[in-house]
Amino acid sequence: MQRLALSEDDKSVRDWFIQTMKDLKCNVTVDEMGNIFAVRPGRRADVPATFIGSHLDTQPTGGRYDGILGVLAGIEVIKTMNDMGLETEGGVGVVDWTNEEGARFPISMISSGVWAECIPLAHAHNLKEVPTVASLPTAASAPETMKSALQKIGYLGDVPCSYKSTPMAAHFEVHIEQGPYLVSANQRVGVVTAVQAYRWFRLNVIGRDTHTGTTAFEHRADALYAFAQMMVRAREVASSKGCLASVGIVEAKPGSVNTVPGEVSFSLDIRGPETELVAEVEKELRTAFDAIAAAEGAGIGKPCRVEWTLDFDSPAVKFHEDCIDCVQQSAQAVVADASVADTTSLVRTIMSGAGHDSVFTSKRVPTSMIFIPCKDGLSHHPEEFSTADDCATGASVILQAVVRYDRK
Amino acid sequence: MQRLALSEDDKSVRDWFIQTMKDLKCNVTVDEMGNIFAVRPGRRADVPATFIGSHLDTQPTGGRYDGILGVLAGIEVIKTMNDMGLETEGGVGVVDWTNEEGARFPISMISSGVWAECIPLAHAHNLKEVPTVASLPTAASAPETMKSALQKIGYLGDVPCSYKSTPMAAHFEVHIEQGPYLVSANQRVGVVTAVQAYRWFRLNVIGRDTHTGTTAFEHRADALYAFAQMMVRAREVASSKGCLASVGIVEAKPGSVNTVPGEVSFSLDIRGPETELVAEVEKELRTAFDAIAAAEGAGIGKPCRVEWTLDFDSPAVKFHEDCIDCVQQSAQAVVADASVADTTSLVRTIMSGAGHDSVFTSKRVPTSMIFIPCKDGLSHHPEEFSTADDCATGASVILQAVVRYDRK
Ligand SMILES: NC(=O)NCCC(=O)O
Ligand SMILES: NC(=O)NCCC(=O)O
Repeated sequence: MQRLALSEDDKSVRDWFIQTMKDLKCNVTVDEMGNIFAVRPGRRADVPATFIGSHLDTQPTGGRYDGILGVLAGIEVIKTMNDMGLETEGGVGVVDWTNEEGARFPISMISSGVWAECIPLAHAHNLKEVPTVASLPTAASAPETMKSALQKIGYLGDVPCSYKSTPMAAHFEVHIEQGPYLVSANQRVGVVTAVQAYRWFRLNVIGRDTHTGTTAFEHRADALYAFAQMMVRAREVASSKGCLASVGIVEAKPGSVNTVPGEVSFSLDIRGPETELVAEVEKELRTAFDAIAAAEGAGIGKPCRVEWTLDFDSPAVKFHEDCIDCVQQSAQAVVADASVADTTSLVRTIMSGAGHDSVFTSKRVPTSMIFIPCKDGLSHHPEEFSTADDCATGASVILQAVVRYDRK
Repeated sequence: MQRLALSEDDKSVRDWFIQTMKDLKCNVTVDEMGNIFAVRPGRRADVPATFIGSHLDTQPTGGRYDGILGVLAGIEVIKTMNDMGLETEGGVGVVDWTNEEGARFPISMISSGVWAECIPLAHAHNLKEVPTVASLPTAASAPETMKSALQKIGYLGDVPCSYKSTPMAAHFEVHIEQGPYLVSANQRVGVVTAVQAYRWFRLNVIGRDTHTGTTAFEHRADALYAFAQMMVRAREVASSKGCLASVGIVEAKPGSVNTVPGEVSFSLDIRGPETELVAEVEKELRTAFDAIAAAEGAGIGKPCRVEWTLDFDSPAVKFHEDCIDCVQQSAQAVVADASVADTTSLVRTIMSGAGHDSVFTSKRVPTSMIFIPCKDGLSHHPEEFSTADDCATGASVILQAVVRYDRK
């Protein structure tokens, strides 16, 4: 599945989502970041709705579950409530957050970030698409900004993007685990209590273009060779601290077989269970990368330099006890009919390795998440898969969690 | 200077070159590879002309001397002969070879290669431009082939591209050294006796796309991490054998900050003084790269794989004794008036680290080259520079060498 944020395909699924929610008698609004909120009214108009949210965009080579499951589960919840004639105190909403993946526009969860007033609207509107996502027809010309992309597909809404304009009682999200713990332990539900910290950087290594055939190694300031050493080092340092460090994007210039690249830019994604650990990895890598750069080109007195830009910083998050309790109880209720001796063991608490829009909603309203197992723990890959049973379990748990929360 | 082969800028300089040569009373022909041959007739019509050749294309971030000096020196030689009313036995020609750099179309010296019947015409015509040279307006759409690019700028000539259709008595070429030997020893002329061997490969590393935040290192088949290790290893292995190994182009897919790249393609340029040494480096790297690939992803039983494609193979070349002698004598004559005790020391024999069209002409006709010093030994860089004096020396030496050869 390739449905990059704000592409024509994203427009199609958005149109479908809005029509579906209207058919289910929901009130639909679109904000300035293209977030779509659909609310099934409750008994009381004076309290905000409890939301189920996730995203419909994917990675360039993404799957059919990451994010999509969460929105579809929301739709199923509304359908089921309608079928059952179930009334709630507050309304129940479903939200499709824009560009959660950070694949086309390189800040993940950016639109829930603006809603939470953690990311300024102007910063988000001006963010440019990454050049490597070249399969987008627009990328051929100048890179699109989020604002121009929103306008192009008609999803620049007029509701201010803020938790003040679109308040929520709470935010729940069901998602595939994207990791191997549930599937390998044969467990059915993860009660997500926390999300690990991460930071995204863009780095530039500046060396010197020169001829590959006539320039001895000691006369080079090879920016790509420096990059290669940095990437190897990044894994070493991250490993040593129980963290992760990954490069997803790399560009070498000028890009000719027989010219040593004089400029390399790359993305660096550092993650770890504690905000402090991510900071430590960053600190060590800054020192290590400076040393690598300084050595490459030292022979000609023109060493490489390396520049860091922080694009995105997501500290570790702990979800809200009330929401965690609702999910915990709902999960136990849903798995109770399983034919195993101890059904409680089918549910576990878990930390999320990936970021989710729930990270930002948690800054403003009680929030928590539900994980279901996925094949091989694989995601951001076309083979991403969860069984229909597991998806149904996730939808049942979130329905119960929302009802439990509404009744609190 | 950025004048990629067969771009609009290349068309302009070609038009200028043809007009200049016609004004100098030369007969101009263009062959099926867009090579432009301009001949000043000699006394006898029954013998082929002696040629001075090089190229007018540059790297994406190239200089103003690499190749260009050789063609301009040829023009100066013809002008000087006209001014002096100098008659030669055979004609004297100047040739601009197409896409010598191999920067836009990734086979260097391809058009002299077709002329020498070492590269099939169809192979050259079908060769696609590299995707990274994105500054070309055409690269926005489908990549151009050499044939379509030749047609587009009107330089698909009708003369068959072959040494049989455009014969030469000999081929001489003057070029900046592109290395540090002459400039650092204060020497004025390099008599080029040989060219080192090189091979160009395109490699693909296939791993598995996955999430950067949820996938432990041991669960990854990170094609870019494998690449990074390969590049580090390539320098080690090449160094140990007195060879060079360089990566100029790298592309990682899908190209998203939070997806571990499942596919990386890159160029590898291996060079060494002996054909056999280059083969040894290749052999060691094939083993080393296989081992690196096998280790990355072993934890999930889906290791990376690496595939090699040989794009271009240029064995080591030894130039022709007769041509070398003509250059040697001419160089000594030109530097003889220098105010140093031993002028012979201003001239040295030298091996070329870079490939040149003379490599291919040498397969069919007596050939040799002349090097002049360049600043810092730098080329394929905008700061490439040679003094006017050194350029004049090069032009004087090649004039004398051609005349000497003509009189043999
Ligand atoms: N769930 C998910 O893949 N989110 C994208 C943000 C991240 O990279 O963690
Ligand atoms: N002279 C020169 O830069 N030629 C390009 C071919 C090569 O890479 O050696």
